[in-house]
Amino acid sequence: MGFEYLTNVPLEQARADYRKLLKEQGFGPRTEVIPVYEACGRVTARAVYAHICAPHYAASAMDGVAVCARDTFGATETTPVTLQKEQYIVLDTGDPVPEDRDAVIMVEDIVKNEDGSITIHAAAAPWQHIRQIGEDVCAGEMILPSHMTVSPSAIGAMIAGGVLEIEVIAKPVVGIIPTGDEIIPPCTDPKPGDILEFNGSIFSAMVKSWGADAVVYPIVPDKFDQIKAMVSRAAAECDMVILNAGSSAGREDYSARVIRELGQVLYHGIAMKPGKPAILGCQGAKPILGVPGYPVSGIIVVEQLLKPLIDHWLKVPAVPSQYAQAILTRPVVSGLKYQEFVRVRMGYVGDRLMASPLSRGSGVVSSFMKADGILEVPQGLEGFEAGAEVTVRLLSPLEKLRNTLVVIGSHDPLLDEVADMLHLEDSSLFMSSSHVGSMGGIMAIRRGEAHAAGCHLLNTQDGSYNRSFMKKYFPRGDVKLVRCVGRQQGLMVARGNPLNIQKFSDIAAEGVRYVNRQKGSGTRILTDYLCKQENLDTSAIYGYDREELTHTSVAAQIVSGSADAGMGIYSAAKLYGLDFIPICIEEYDLIIPDHAWETPMVRQLIATLKSDGFRDKILSLGGYTVENPGEIIPLD
Amino acid sequence: MGFEYLTNVPLEQARADYRKLLKEQGFGPRTEVIPVYEACGRVTARAVYAHICAPHYAASAMDGVAVCARDTFGATETTPVTLQKEQYIVLDTGDPVPEDRDAVIMVEDIVKNEDGSITIHAAAAPWQHIRQIGEDVCAGEMILPSHMTVSPSAIGAMIAGGVLEIEVIAKPVVGIIPTGDEIIPPCTDPKPGDILEFNGSIFSAMVKSWGADAVVYPIVPDKFDQIKAMVSRAAAECDMVILNAGSSAGREDYSARVIRELGQVLYHGIAMKPGKPAILGCQGAKPILGVPGYPVSGIIVVEQLLKPLIDHWLKVPAVPSQYAQAILTRPVVSGLKYQEFVRVRMGYVGDRLMASPLSRGSGVVSSFMKADGILEVPQGLEGFEAGAEVTVRLLSPLEKLRNTLVVIGSHDPLLDEVADMLHLEDSSLFMSSSHVGSMGGIMAIRRGEAHAAGCHLLNTQDGSYNRSFMKKYFPRGDVKLVRCVGRQQGLMVARGNPLNIQKFSDIAAEGVRYVNRQKGSGTRILTDYLCKQENLDTSAIYGYDREELTHTSVAAQIVSGSADAGMGIYSAAKLYGLDFIPICIEEYDLIIPDHAWETPMVRQLIATLKSDGFRDKILSLGGYTVENPGEIIPLD
Repeated sequence: MGFEYLTNVPLEQARADYRKLLKEQGFGPRTEVIPVYEACGRVTARAVYAHICAPHYAASAMDGVAVCARDTFGATETTPVTLQKEQYIVLDTGDPVPEDRDAVIMVEDIVKNEDGSITIHAAAAPWQHIRQIGEDVCAGEMILPSHMTVSPSAIGAMIAGGVLEIEVIAKPVVGIIPTGDEIIPPCTDPKPGDILEFNGSIFSAMVKSWGADAVVYPIVPDKFDQIKAMVSRAAAECDMVILNAGSSAGREDYSARVIRELGQVLYHGIAMKPGKPAILGCQGAKPILGVPGYPVSGIIVVEQLLKPLIDHWLKVPAVPSQYAQAILTRPVVSGLKYQEFVRVRMGYVGDRLMASPLSRGSGVVSSFMKADGILEVPQGLEGFEAGAEVTVRLLSPLEKLRNTLVVIGSHDPLLDEVADMLHLEDSSLFMSSSHVGSMGGIMAIRRGEAHAAGCHLLNTQDGSYNRSFMKKYFPRGDVKLVRCVGRQQGLMVARGNPLNIQKFSDIAAEGVRYVNRQKGSGTRILTDYLCKQENLDTSAIYGYDREELTHTSVAAQIVSGSADAGMGIYSAAKLYGLDFIPICIEEYDLIIPDHAWETPMVRQLIATLKSDGFRDKILSLGGYTVENPGEIIPLD
Repeated sequence: MGFEYLTNVPLEQARADYRKLLKEQGFGPRTEVIPVYEACGRVTARAVYAHICAPHYAASAMDGVAVCARDTFGATETTPVTLQKEQYIVLDTGDPVPEDRDAVIMVEDIVKNEDGSITIHAAAAPWQHIRQIGEDVCAGEMILPSHMTVSPSAIGAMIAGGVLEIEVIAKPVVGIIPTGDEIIPPCTDPKPGDILEFNGSIFSAMVKSWGADAVVYPIVPDKFDQIKAMVSRAAAECDMVILNAGSSAGREDYSARVIRELGQVLYHGIAMKPGKPAILGCQGAKPILGVPGYPVSGIIVVEQLLKPLIDHWLKVPAVPSQYAQAILTRPVVSGLKYQEFVRVRMGYVGDRLMASPLSRGSGVVSSFMKADGILEVPQGLEGFEAGAEVTVRLLSPLEKLRNTLVVIGSHDPLLDEVADMLHLEDSSLFMSSSHVGSMGGIMAIRRGEAHAAGCHLLNTQDGSYNRSFMKKYFPRGDVKLVRCVGRQQGLMVARGNPLNIQKFSDIAAEGVRYVNRQKGSGTRILTDYLCKQENLDTSAIYGYDREELTHTSVAAQIVSGSADAGMGIYSAAKLYGLDFIPICIEEYDLIIPDHAWETPMVRQLIATLKSDGFRDKILSLGGYTVENPGEIIPLD
C-alpha cells in the first residue's frame, strides 16, 4: 500500500518543459506522398508548384465563333459586317482557339444567314472571350505554400496545374494502451468488479477529431513485463503513446516504472485537477503519456497534454478555443494547489449566459457529455462564488446555447422524452435539464436561471399541488404554471416484494433498508409528509438520510440489493423491473417565467406538450395520467 | 447552335420549391446500425437508452479499505479507533465494495500497525468514497436524444451504459458524373482542347467536408444515351446525383433532357451568377442536380443548392455561416437580374477589414482557392462602390485574417517564396499578395489597404528607383522603403531566339508580336521609358496593347507561341525555359507604412528578408542580386 510521492508541477510549465524535451529528442512530423484528390483537409509538407499552365492552350470562354479581330473592325449596329464561312470557326466553351484567330464572338451576338455567312453588329476586341494560357495557373507558379491546409478548390487548382500527387504531413498515429486486471472489453453483462474498457474509444475519437489516427491495443493485465512489452511495441509502431490507467500512486502502479525503463519520465504529477497523476515521458522522440484511469481525468489530461503535441506535429495553427463570460449559478470551491477544470452546463436565459457546475466526480463520463463548457480555475485561486461572472471555455457553440431550453427542477424521465421530441420537431432547438428537486427549480426560476422548472409540491394543509407555492414564491405573479402530467407515486421494492411491504409505514419496519430522495425534492416533501401523517420517527428509519438525486438512481439501489424500499414514480420502477406499491397521484407541472414565454424554445415546449405524440409517449411509459397538458393553470 | 430558353427563378425561391418537391417525393435520410466506437461525429437516428447501470456495482472510488461505517464512529484525532484485520478489506479504485461494507477510507487516512490492524483518526460517513450503482448512468435512462451528434465522451457514456451499437443517420452518398467529349482524366501532358477533369475531385471533397460520401463516376462522352444510362445508374446507387457540365444552353446540352426523361426538371436556370444554367431535377426521391462545367460556377451551385439537401438529410442544424463587415477596395458592378457571388480576398490593415474582389472568370478555380470570403450581391442591386462597407460571408476565419500580411503591388515570384518562409517560420502568420503593379501598390498603401507593396519605379529623370516616388506620393513621410532585391529585366523570347532579337528596339521589328504588361506596372513604365529613349512609336508595335498582369503570364504567352517577345524578369524566363536578353537591373523594394511597422506580420517579414534562407533561395532562382535586404533605405 506504499505509494511514491508525485511532483506537483504547474500545467503550463509541464507543457513547456515537455515540448522542450521532445524537441531535443527530435520529435516532429513524418511526411507522405498522396494523390491530390485525397488531400482535402491535409497539410502540405512543402510548397506546391504548378507543372503545367491552366488553361494549357488558348481556349474559347464562350459558345460562339472564333474570328480574326481585324475582320470585324468597323462593325456597328448601323454598319454590320458579314463574315463568310471560311472567316469564322464555330466553337464551344473550352474548345481551342486556332493560332490564326484572336477573338471569339458569343453565339448570342451573331446572326446566321442562309448562305452560311454570319452578320455581326459590333467589332470584336482582340483576345475577347479567349481564356489565355495560364489565366488560371501558370507553370512554375506556387499554388500552395508549405504547411497549408488543402481546400477543395486547391485540389482543383493543383490538378489544373498538372499536380497529381503531393507531399503532406502524415497524420500522427496515437497508440492507446488500456491496462488493468479489472478492465474488460465492452459488453452488456459485466460481472461485479469488471470495468468496461471505454477510455480507449473516447481517446481514439478525440485524437481523430484533432486530425490524428489512433490504434487501440488489446487490454493488458497489471503485469509489469506485459505492460512494458506493449508500450515498447506501441512506441515502435506509433508516433505517440497513451498508457491508460495505473498512473495513480495505487497498489498496481507500474506505468512510471515502465516508461522510466524504456526511456525517461519528465514529470509524474501535474498541478491539475482532475488529472494530477499524469505522467509525461518519452522513448526517444516518441512521447509516452501516462493517463489516469478515470475517464474525466483521462479526457482532461489527453486534451491538455497530448493535443498540443498533435497540433505541433500537424503544423497548422490550432483552432483557438472559444470563450464566453457567464454567470455561475452555484459556487465552485477549488484547491489552491491545483489548476482545476470544472465542467459546466450552460444556457442563455434572456441575455444572461448561465453556467452550472456539473458533478465533479472524475468517474462520471456522462457529466463530460453534458458539459457545454469548462471553467478553468487557476492554481492559487480558491474558486468562485455563486453569481460571479466567470470566463468559460466553450464546448458547445453559443448558437446552440442561445437555442437551448434550460429546465431546472424536479426530475422526471418524461423530460428526456420532451427533449427528444422538441429537437426532433425543430433540429435547431435543444433542451438541457438539471435535477435539483422542486424547490431547487423554484429558486432557479426566481434567480432567472431557467426557462422552466418541473415541480410537484404538496400543500400539506389542503392537499393541493403547486398553486399555493406559486403565490408564496412568486408574489408578483410573473410566472405561469403549466399543466404537465399526473404521476403515480409509490414505494419501489425488489421484484417479488421479498420483505412483503404493503403500505407506506412498512418503511419503518425492522430490517427494511430505506433509500431516500434529497431534501427539497417534491418526493422528499411527500415522504416527510406521509411520515408525519403516520407518526413515523424518521430518525428510526434505516437509511432515511441516504439521499439520491433521481427516481432512477433510487431504483438502481434497490435493484442492486443495497436498499429494500424507496419512494418514487411508477415509470422508474417499471424500467428496473421492480415491484411497485402505489401510494398517491401527484400533479407534476412546469413553472415558466413570463420573460421566457415568447421564446422559440418555450413555444415549442408548449406545442410538444399539447401534441398527440406526447400523450401517446407518456401513456406508453405507464404510471402517468394526462389531462390537457400544456394548458395554463389559473393561480387564483 | 440553337439553345433553349432558361428560367431565371430567384435562388431563394428555387431552393424552397426544390425542398417542397423533394419532400413530396419522399426525400429523407436512410439510417444504419454501427458500432458505438465508430460513431464519433455521426448523428443518432433515435434516442439512445442505457441498457445497464454505470457503475453496475457499488465500487470503491479510492485506493483504501472498505469498512462498516458503524465500526468507525467516535474516531477523532484524540480518540483514534483501531480496526482488526477482519474488519477491513483492502481495495483499489474500482474494486467492488462487498455488500456488508458501506464506506471506504482512503489509504492516506489510515495508519498500518505491525499486527495487521489499522488505526484511523476520523469516523467514516456511510457511503463515503463509494461510487453507487448508476452514479454515472442509470439503466433505462436516455443517454442521447434523437438527431444529436455523437461526441467522444458520449461514446464513453454509451459503452458504460452497455450500448455497443446504435442506429445513426447514414451518410448520404452523392454520385458525381463528369461529362464531355473534351474532358480527360487528370494527367500532366494534356493535348490542346483536352480539359482535365477536376470538378469531380472538388465536389467530392466539398460534400465529404459536409458529412456526405461521394462516388465519382467515369467520364461520360457527350452522347445522350450514355449520359442517360449513367444518370440512371447513379440514381439507383446513390442518394443524390450531380450531373456535371452540359447544363448551359450550348451545342451539346443533354442534361435537362436526360433528367426530364428519367424523372422531372423543376427549374433550368436560376437567377444567380455564376451558376445560372443550373438544373434542379429529381428521379423520384433522388435529387439530380445539373451543374455547369466551369469550376467556380459548379462550386457555387453545389454549395447553394446541394449543401442544404445534405444538411436537411443529416438532421443537424447547419453550421451557421460567419459574416463580417468589410470595406471594398474596388467597385463591384453586378447585373440587376441575378444574385451574384463575388469572391473576395480579405485582410485586416489596422482595425479595418478590407475586401478586394478577385477575378470573376468562372473558369478561374485558383481564384476560389485564394478567396477569403464571398460578397453576395442581392438580385436587383447594381453593385457597390469602392470604399463601401459590405457584409461578406467568410471562408477564412477572422483569426487568420488578423494574422495575414497583405501585400499589394508589383508582382514577383519571390513574394510567393517569402509567403512560404513566413508561414514556415510562424505557422500562425499568413501572407496574401495581389498583383496590381507598382503604382497600384502605392495607391493601395495610400488608401490604407495593405501592409506592404512591391515597387520598382524608375525615375526617368535621374535613373534612380522608387525613392523619388516615395517623396511624391507620401509627402508626410509616413512610410518606410525597405530594400528587397535587384532584378534583371530583359526580353523573354522563344527558346533558340528564332526571330534573332538582340536589343530592345527589335520589339518594333516587322513580324514580331509583342506582349506587354499592364499600365501602372513598373515593367510597363520601364518599357514605355525605353521606347521613348529609342524613339519607338508604340502604336506601331504589334501587341503593345495586349496586357498581362504578371511576368509568368507574359512568359506563358511566349511559350505557347501566341507572342514572340515580352519584357520581364529573368526568373520567369528561366521557369519557362525561354531565352532571355538582359536589358537592365532594377531595384525591387517594399513600401511599408509606419502604422504597420510593429505588427507581428511585418516584423516577421523583415526577419525573413534578413535571413540566410531568403538569400540562398533568391540566389538559387537566378536573375537577382541581393544586398542587405530588409534594411531601411534613407529617403533623403
